[in-house]
Amino acid sequence: MHRSQLAGFIIDCRTGDIGEAAEFWSSALGLSSVADPRSDATRYRRLEPGPGGLELEVQRVDHESRVHLDIETDNVEAEVGRLEALGAKRVESVHSWVVMEAPTGQRFCVVRAFSKGFDDSARRWE
Amino acid sequence: MHRSQLAGFIIDCRTGDIGEAAEFWSSALGLSSVADPRSDATRYRRLEPGPGGLELEVQRVDHESRVHLDIETDNVEAEVGRLEALGAKRVESVHSWVVMEAPTGQRFCVVRAFSKGFDDSARRWE
Repeated sequence: MHRSQLAGFIIDCRTGDIGEAAEFWSSALGLSSVADPRSDATRYRRLEPGPGGLELEVQRVDHESRVHLDIETDNVEAEVGRLEALGAKRVESVHSWVVMEAPTGQRFCVVRAFSKGFDDSARRWE
Repeated sequence: MHRSQLAGFIIDCRTGDIGEAAEFWSSALGLSSVADPRSDATRYRRLEPGPGGLELEVQRVDHESRVHLDIETDNVEAEVGRLEALGAKRVESVHSWVVMEAPTGQRFCVVRAFSKGFDDSARRWE
């Protein structure tokens, strides 16, 4: 058995200035932009509060700008296998997470569970 | 004065089969896929429950697959003007909504407010 759930949405921005990108999205969405002490401040800003505890982040990236979603899980390899069985493809492993591509074409990430209350709210897969 | 807030995220899928696309995302995220009686069933499926009342939808599109966000407002023209002042560009009007492009490159939509409790939760812009 393992668990997983939608963890959040990441606004990937091809930019040299994460502060400027986060300032736009913070103002556009009426949310606060916060540097997360757990993350590289030159690459990430959190937008708060995320609805229902959802993680919203602005990320500086080198690839084209887009929006992607993260699935969090207590077992990354088991979750990647479950998603492969549904038709998704593993693209690459980066640090502790895995980048995947949906059969409908979007890139998304499978990451280690980090949300409060994950054990109670996540879906169980037997 | 007008109001706006983040309304939700739409998973745009270039596919001939909205049912198959929605089935993947429903299974991947552990959410229910529901045909919305307000919408064209050949183009849209809702994924429920969205965290914190956020709207999550799978949409059949003709352009490339991506994920985009919607901002809902009680005054579409005023909100488009506010976002233009922040650096976003108006791309096109479609039905009652406006497609925009962020200065960081992502497309997003400004739509008429539809969420329950919008008047209480939305941000006020003077």
